[in-house]
Amino acid sequence: MTGEITLPQSFELLHEKLDQAVGILDEKDTDLWLTFVRETSQVRDPALDIVLGWDLTWQSALLVSRLGERIAIVGQFDADNIRRSGAYHTVIGYNEGLREPLLQVLQRLDPQSIAVNYSENDPAADGLTHGMFGVLRRHLDGTPYADRLISAEPIIGALRGRKSPGELARIRRAVATTEGIFEQLTDHLEPGQSERQLAEWIHQRVARMELGFAWEPAYCPTFTAGPDSPFGHAMPGDWRTGRGHTLQIDFGVKEQDFVADLQRTWYFLDEGESRPPAEVQRAFDAVRATIRAGEAALKPGAIGWEVDAAARSTITEWGYPAYQHALGHQMGRSAHDGSTILGPRWERYQDTPFGVVEQGNVFTLELGVQVPERGFVGLEEDVVVTETGCEYLSRPQTELWCV
Amino acid sequence: MTGEITLPQSFELLHEKLDQAVGILDEKDTDLWLTFVRETSQVRDPALDIVLGWDLTWQSALLVSRLGERIAIVGQFDADNIRRSGAYHTVIGYNEGLREPLLQVLQRLDPQSIAVNYSENDPAADGLTHGMFGVLRRHLDGTPYADRLISAEPIIGALRGRKSPGELARIRRAVATTEGIFEQLTDHLEPGQSERQLAEWIHQRVARMELGFAWEPAYCPTFTAGPDSPFGHAMPGDWRTGRGHTLQIDFGVKEQDFVADLQRTWYFLDEGESRPPAEVQRAFDAVRATIRAGEAALKPGAIGWEVDAAARSTITEWGYPAYQHALGHQMGRSAHDGSTILGPRWERYQDTPFGVVEQGNVFTLELGVQVPERGFVGLEEDVVVTETGCEYLSRPQTELWCV
Repeated sequence: MTGEITLPQSFELLHEKLDQAVGILDEKDTDLWLTFVRETSQVRDPALDIVLGWDLTWQSALLVSRLGERIAIVGQFDADNIRRSGAYHTVIGYNEGLREPLLQVLQRLDPQSIAVNYSENDPAADGLTHGMFGVLRRHLDGTPYADRLISAEPIIGALRGRKSPGELARIRRAVATTEGIFEQLTDHLEPGQSERQLAEWIHQRVARMELGFAWEPAYCPTFTAGPDSPFGHAMPGDWRTGRGHTLQIDFGVKEQDFVADLQRTWYFLDEGESRPPAEVQRAFDAVRATIRAGEAALKPGAIGWEVDAAARSTITEWGYPAYQHALGHQMGRSAHDGSTILGPRWERYQDTPFGVVEQGNVFTLELGVQVPERGFVGLEEDVVVTETGCEYLSRPQTELWCV
Repeated sequence: MTGEITLPQSFELLHEKLDQAVGILDEKDTDLWLTFVRETSQVRDPALDIVLGWDLTWQSALLVSRLGERIAIVGQFDADNIRRSGAYHTVIGYNEGLREPLLQVLQRLDPQSIAVNYSENDPAADGLTHGMFGVLRRHLDGTPYADRLISAEPIIGALRGRKSPGELARIRRAVATTEGIFEQLTDHLEPGQSERQLAEWIHQRVARMELGFAWEPAYCPTFTAGPDSPFGHAMPGDWRTGRGHTLQIDFGVKEQDFVADLQRTWYFLDEGESRPPAEVQRAFDAVRATIRAGEAALKPGAIGWEVDAAARSTITEWGYPAYQHALGHQMGRSAHDGSTILGPRWERYQDTPFGVVEQGNVFTLELGVQVPERGFVGLEEDVVVTETGCEYLSRPQTELWCV
């Protein structure tokens, strides 16, 4: 704690994203975007992080119009902080109820389409609760606006997905910080350390730097130490590093509201070994080749599942089983940042593998394979999509790190 | 940071609440309660804190049946942590999709009613997003269960509202810790300190104790120092403590996942004064009397708005304007813990003032009045409803604290 109190959002970034939203509304032929929330300390619409960045109490409407107008209608006690940000041209602080000021604004703007935050596909675009959808419909009862509600999925997908310069700078920093912690960890590693001990060592470093975690701290980082430790979101356990075994870590910090998400793999040389045994090296080479296959397929216009398929066929051509997850997901304010994923067309991914990759998207590229009696070999890189392809935000791991 | 890694939930408390849920399902004549979530790092259903306590990634169904059966259907990578908790009798970790295992469970249990987490009234019972409601309806398409979905508002309201022994113990601790910080602050106060300085002082203490805040840290605590500082959720500003002025603070810590929410008022004696001036003292006496009126009306069976009305008429009888908010809200895992509030029948409170007070509910009792040229005088106490009335969890402030 520095002890300095600030609203948990950079006003500069807030303005940058709201400006970007206006252009996206025009591109998507949508007149108005309405983020409708209440008591966000209970349920926090992920879009609120983009259009404001802190909690609101009573029913609140944050509106962005295609013509660039930004209007906030909030409980009176919440109005001051929003005025302070300068991000909304009009801030209406109400006392008894939101319906009347909301209807007045709608009548003045007369939008033909009102995008609200629900989506069956994209968790990041699905912050409007079912109850609040009902509340909104009742506010609009008897007006023409009740039938003009549409899903904001395309708006939020584009806005959240196309990282702005301020967002990219923050992601680069979170990646660099995470890589720094991996470097320190490499010096610290020795055989016989438990996953739990290593997790505590990393947690202490993160606390000292006054940073957060990319996901639930109880399993950030996750470890796979040796052949018996389970792969997944399990908590660090009592499995220990050991000679002749691998150690894989999945980890990222949260820094200035943005995260990194990286996997790295170490090999603990056995007595007499000067390099990893052939089967471990081959697994690493296959995983690295698979990431490169995904990297080669990742460019604007590619469809999510196509990128996954290019990688998936690579790992199976090497003779390993395919990974039981997507090759990559978007990353930004969250480790799983919503919208298009680079994943197979499986039920659980719904429509998200059918999305189109866009310039400015930040993706992970990740997979691993199990090597019998040695352990898990996994890699995960973070990349940003450029005009013609993609560029690493991380320094890719190109060889096994030996301890 | 202690560095020790644990799942962010007490398994004992988890079992306690799940046991309680079974009884409530029976009382409310509901066969099954389904918490249906995905990617909860994006949108976190508040009920998830009660039925699990940490994040889930893919579509997940947490089921509690009236007969006491508890079943979790989650992505395979999330299954281990749930098994570890022992809170669910059956943990199904799926790979490709949740629909099939979910339908199998429903066919076996054949519930006549399935309560899901949406509510127009209660934010704490409204964690199911509109998109996820659509996903669930499509999973159930063509089955009899599609038409058996009902709102879990009564289940969640009762379960969250009736604090268990483990919950009450945690709330008492958070209240005691908050009071301890107020005591330390009293020794630290002197004229000329800015709200911002005092907030930083409190934040440093909270950080040193490795605790969290009851609400958004940027305005926890809030301050009203002297007559010009605005009352509300505004961030601490540059207003300073001064002789002849009041200082009011609204603050609470979060400790072991539970919060306190208290207001206290100090008076800075002017030169030559040995006690507060009459108009400040009278304001305090009126506020205290109003809280006592609320306290007297608060008992099982009372209706929320009736308790508010008893207090509201007291403060106006004293000749002060009525407060522009509810007399009290429930408190627990959140400062605003949902369900019944002790508030007026205003649009923005929807149906929440019509709820019935129950034994085990924890409420705040809070209000304040502005004294011209002196500042705001505000009090907030935390109480638990007993069999016949209510009992203070806080040590009520019964006189102005003079500096």
